[in-house]
Amino acid sequence: MAIVVGHLSTVEGKEALAAALTEARQRDTDVVVVSSGGETPQESAALASHLADAGLEHRVVEGTGDLADDLVRAASESGAELIVIGLRRRSPVGKLILGSGAQRILLDAPCPVLAVKP
Amino acid sequence: MAIVVGHLSTVEGKEALAAALTEARQRDTDVVVVSSGGETPQESAALASHLADAGLEHRVVEGTGDLADDLVRAASESGAELIVIGLRRRSPVGKLILGSGAQRILLDAPCPVLAVKP
Repeated sequence: MAIVVGHLSTVEGKEALAAALTEARQRDTDVVVVSSGGETPQESAALASHLADAGLEHRVVEGTGDLADDLVRAASESGAELIVIGLRRRSPVGKLILGSGAQRILLDAPCPVLAVKP
Repeated sequence: MAIVVGHLSTVEGKEALAAALTEARQRDTDVVVVSSGGETPQESAALASHLADAGLEHRVVEGTGDLADDLVRAASESGAELIVIGLRRRSPVGKLILGSGAQRILLDAPCPVLAVKP
């Protein structure tokens, strides 16, 4: 069992990672982080250090560039109990459409999905 | 703090309610159930009995018929920590669109949203 989350340097991505670590602690389970592929070496090192500091069992999976597919696949392969995703807050005039990546994850996930916002 | 969930007699609704009760137990928090308005007296009685058996603090809020709005409002008013919703499983030829109610909840929720599937 594991919690699956992507590694994105956006505020939504950071919120998702923080929520995933909290859930992993509460559920006493591992974390699988899917790299989005765009990380600098510094960002990858910061992630590794952050996960080590959190004291959680974790694994970083190299992404293919399609984060939605990667998260669903990682969840299937690891028998995950949860995927955590970050959503943008809607602006006051925001359109009523979720991003297609978020929709694909929600529809195709083999497990529950926790959607958080910054 | 509370977990907010709708009361629907569909398989997705039942899955959401079961997940909400599990989360409420794990987090030791209350449950706010939003009635969808279409319940028979028997269904309402079964819900009350189910919640009492679960041994959780709970409150049933009468819905207005727009469950998405009702869930978001109930979450805001109760300072909820989580909304739980049930999503349909996509069929093999299923369209790549989430229901507009689910999208509104995800976009407008003042708190994290847990999406589960039967």
